[in-house]
Amino acid sequence: MPELTAATIAALRDALGTDGLLLDAGECAVYGYDNSRRHAQPQAVALPESNEQVQALVRACVAARLPMVARGRGTNTTGASVPVAGGIVVSFERMDRILAIRAADRVAVVQPGVLNGTLQEAAGAQGFFWPPDPTSAPYCSIGGNLACNAGGPRAVKYGATRDNVLALAFVDGRGALIRAGAPTTKGASGYDFTRFLVGSEGTLGLIVEATLKLVPKPEARRSLRALYRDMDAAAAAVARLMAQPVAPSMLEFMDAGCVKLAREVGGADIPEAGALLMIEADGAAEQLEYAVAALSRAARGDGLIALDVAPDEAAREALWAARKALSPSLRTIAPGKINEDVVVPVSAIPALVARVAEIARDIDLPVLSFGHAGNGNLHVNIMYDPADAAQSERAQRGMHALFAAVLALDGQLSGEHGIGLAKREFMAKAYSPATLALMRAVKAQFDPEGIFNPGKML
Amino acid sequence: MPELTAATIAALRDALGTDGLLLDAGECAVYGYDNSRRHAQPQAVALPESNEQVQALVRACVAARLPMVARGRGTNTTGASVPVAGGIVVSFERMDRILAIRAADRVAVVQPGVLNGTLQEAAGAQGFFWPPDPTSAPYCSIGGNLACNAGGPRAVKYGATRDNVLALAFVDGRGALIRAGAPTTKGASGYDFTRFLVGSEGTLGLIVEATLKLVPKPEARRSLRALYRDMDAAAAAVARLMAQPVAPSMLEFMDAGCVKLAREVGGADIPEAGALLMIEADGAAEQLEYAVAALSRAARGDGLIALDVAPDEAAREALWAARKALSPSLRTIAPGKINEDVVVPVSAIPALVARVAEIARDIDLPVLSFGHAGNGNLHVNIMYDPADAAQSERAQRGMHALFAAVLALDGQLSGEHGIGLAKREFMAKAYSPATLALMRAVKAQFDPEGIFNPGKML
Repeated sequence: MPELTAATIAALRDALGTDGLLLDAGECAVYGYDNSRRHAQPQAVALPESNEQVQALVRACVAARLPMVARGRGTNTTGASVPVAGGIVVSFERMDRILAIRAADRVAVVQPGVLNGTLQEAAGAQGFFWPPDPTSAPYCSIGGNLACNAGGPRAVKYGATRDNVLALAFVDGRGALIRAGAPTTKGASGYDFTRFLVGSEGTLGLIVEATLKLVPKPEARRSLRALYRDMDAAAAAVARLMAQPVAPSMLEFMDAGCVKLAREVGGADIPEAGALLMIEADGAAEQLEYAVAALSRAARGDGLIALDVAPDEAAREALWAARKALSPSLRTIAPGKINEDVVVPVSAIPALVARVAEIARDIDLPVLSFGHAGNGNLHVNIMYDPADAAQSERAQRGMHALFAAVLALDGQLSGEHGIGLAKREFMAKAYSPATLALMRAVKAQFDPEGIFNPGKML
Repeated sequence: MPELTAATIAALRDALGTDGLLLDAGECAVYGYDNSRRHAQPQAVALPESNEQVQALVRACVAARLPMVARGRGTNTTGASVPVAGGIVVSFERMDRILAIRAADRVAVVQPGVLNGTLQEAAGAQGFFWPPDPTSAPYCSIGGNLACNAGGPRAVKYGATRDNVLALAFVDGRGALIRAGAPTTKGASGYDFTRFLVGSEGTLGLIVEATLKLVPKPEARRSLRALYRDMDAAAAAVARLMAQPVAPSMLEFMDAGCVKLAREVGGADIPEAGALLMIEADGAAEQLEYAVAALSRAARGDGLIALDVAPDEAAREALWAARKALSPSLRTIAPGKINEDVVVPVSAIPALVARVAEIARDIDLPVLSFGHAGNGNLHVNIMYDPADAAQSERAQRGMHALFAAVLALDGQLSGEHGIGLAKREFMAKAYSPATLALMRAVKAQFDPEGIFNPGKML
C-alpha cells in the first residue's frame, strides 16, 4: 500500500477543496465495501464536484502513484468497487446532476452520480425511459451501470447499458478529459471509445458525463405466466418466443426450486411446476391484445401446464412480486450462496440447465436458477453454509464446474454483474493468452501508471 | 513503398498457396480503386481461404513490413480500401461462407466476404433480416459493412452495423487470432473489442468471422409521403416523429432541390414542395393501421402541404424509386460532387439546414441534401465542375464550412461512410489532441508494426 504523505494530502486538498477529501478512518470505512460483502479500507475518499476537480485529482494521484477506485453506490456484487490495493475511493455522489433531457434527440445527458431511479423519474415526466433496469435501480448510480454494463429484465427487448449510451466524457490516466462519441444515433468517425468504456469496471478512466439513449415509454403492458412440466419444455418455449416477431418486453424464468420458494416463502399463488416463465408485452394499449396473442401462441407447446394472463395491473404486480421476492428468500434455504450471473446462447439453455442439475447432484447442494431467459442470462445460486468447510469446498467446486460448462457452450462468465474480484481468476479460461495480452496492452494506454482500479477484472 | 523481394514473394506463396497470390500488375490494378474514384496500385493481392492463411499472411507481411489493406467489394466512398502506401490488398472474396443461421439465438455467423444481399436472402428464408441496408447492399460485403459501421434507412429503427454485431474473430498485427464477444445479447466479461473494431476501417485487425444479430422480418410495411412548405417545417415534423412511441422503420428526407430533381429527372409524381419526408411503418399486418395513424398524427403540423399513404406495395415502390434515383440524377446538375455524410442531433437539423443554405449562397454552387432524417444523418451534395479551378476551390471551401458547422452542432464528420482518406485531415478538428493521441496509442497495441491500412482515418 502506498504511503499517504502530508505532501500528497496537500495536493489532494488542492485538487478537491477543503471539504472534498475524507481522511477519517471511520468516515472512509463505509466507502470500502460493496454488495459482494467484501471490504477494504480506503486511505482517503475523494468527493469531486466538477470535471476539473476530477482531472486535478487524477494528476495528484499519478504523481503519488496512488490507486483510484471509482464508486457509485456500491450496489455491485463482484467486489469491483472495493479498494483492495488501498488508495483513494472516488465517490461521484456530488456529481449528480441531470444536465439535459432532449425529447427530439431522445437523449439525456447526466453526471455519473445520478441514480438510475432519479433519471427514470425525470425522463418519465417527458414520456421516456432509459432501458437498463437492474434490481437496484432505485438506489444504484448511472456511473455504476456504465461500469458493469448493467442489464435487467427489459434488456431482452431494449438492450443493456452498452446498447443505450451514445457519448461519454472521461478523464484518462494522464488527467486528460476525453470526449468520445456524439449525441447521435449513427457515427463512423474514428474509434468508438464510448462503448469500449462501458463494462470496463473503472479500469480505463473516470467517466464524468454520459449521453444516454432514451426510449419512448410504452402506453401499457400485460404479463403472462406460463407453467411447464420441466425446464426442457420451458427452454423450448423460450426458443419459440425469441424466434417469432413480437419481442417480449421481459422474459424471465424460474426453475422448480424457485417456483417452490416463491410459493412457500414469497406467498405467491403458483401451483407446483417444473419451471415457470414470466412473459411481458408492452406497447400501445390497443396493440396489446395482438402482442399477447402472439406471445401466447409461442408459449404454447409440449409440456405447458397452464398459461394465465394477468387481467390487470394489480395481478401483474402480484406476479412480479413473486419474482422479486426470490433473491431474499434464498436465505431460508442456506445461509450462504454463490450467486453467478452466467450467460449462454438461448439455444444452449437446455444444455446448461441439464448440466446445472448434474452439478447440483455432484456437489450435493441445492442449486436454484432464475433469470433473464430471453437473453440466455441465468442467475445460478449455489446454496451452502459458509461455516461448513466441506460445503464451502463443494460450493467452490460447483462454481468452477458451472463456469467450465458455460464457456464450453460459447457463453460468458457474466451477463450483467461484471468480473470484479469475484471472477477475475476465470478470465484466463474465458480468453486466450493473446486476447488477454491485448486487453492489458490497451488498458496501459488509457492508464499508463496503472492507478485505475488495480487488481480488478484483468 | 517497400520492396517486394523474391524471398517475400516466396513467403507470401507459402502462406497462401500457389493460386492465392496475384502479382500481375493488370490483375492487381482492379483491386486498387474504390467508389471514391481514387486509385493506387497494389504490389500484390492476397486471396486467403482460411483463418490460418490470414494469420500466416500477417506474419509474412510483418516480417517484410508490408502494408496490408483489407478489401471487401470496394463500394466504400472514402478511399479507405485504396492501398495508398502500396503493399498487399487482402481480398476476402474467397472467405464468403455463411457458417450458421440459428433462429432461437437470432444470430448468423458469417465470413467477411459474404455479400450483405446474400445474407439477407439466406436469413429471409428463415424469417429474419440483418438491419444494415446500405444502398450497395446487393453487392457490398459484410466485412466492408463492419469496417465502416454501415447504416442505411432502416437504422432509424433497427440500428447500424455496430448495434447488430455480437462477436468477432480477427487477426491482430502479430498474427494472433483473437475472439471477441460471444453469441449472446448480454455480456459483462472484459473489454468489448467486438464493437470497438466495427468502424475501425481495417486499421486494427483483419476480421475473419462475425456473429451478427438477426431481427425477425416484419410481416408488412406501409409508406407515407409528406410534403412541407420548407425544411424548417419538415425538421419540426422529424422532431415530433422521433419524440412519439411508434418508431418509423424509415424516415428519409429530401430538400427542395432534391424534390425538383426527383420530379424532373427521376420522373416521380411529386408536386413542388420545400421539403419532403418519406416515412415508413413496419410490423404485423393488423397493427399497421395503428402505426400509420400514429406516424400521420406526428407528421401533421404547421407547414404540411400534403400527406399521402401509399395504398399498396406498387405505390410504395414508386415512392422509393424516386429516392433511389436521386444519387445518379445529381450528375445532371453538375459533373462533379462532394458528397458528405454528416450527422447531427435530430434537434440540430434545422440549424444545419439553415447553415447549408448560407454556405450554398456563399460558394455560389448548388448544394442538395437528402438522407436519413430520423438519425440526423444528412447526405449533403456540393455540385461543381471539377475542370473549373474556381468552382473546385469554392466546393472545397464549402466542405470545410460544412464540417465546421457540423462539429459546432455536436455532430460527427460521418454517419455511415467513414473517414478513410477523404476526411482524415478533419479528424484534428473533430477530436482533441489527447483523444487522437489515445486513438493512436490504442491502434499501436493492435498493430505494433503499423501495417494495417496505413495513412487512413488517423
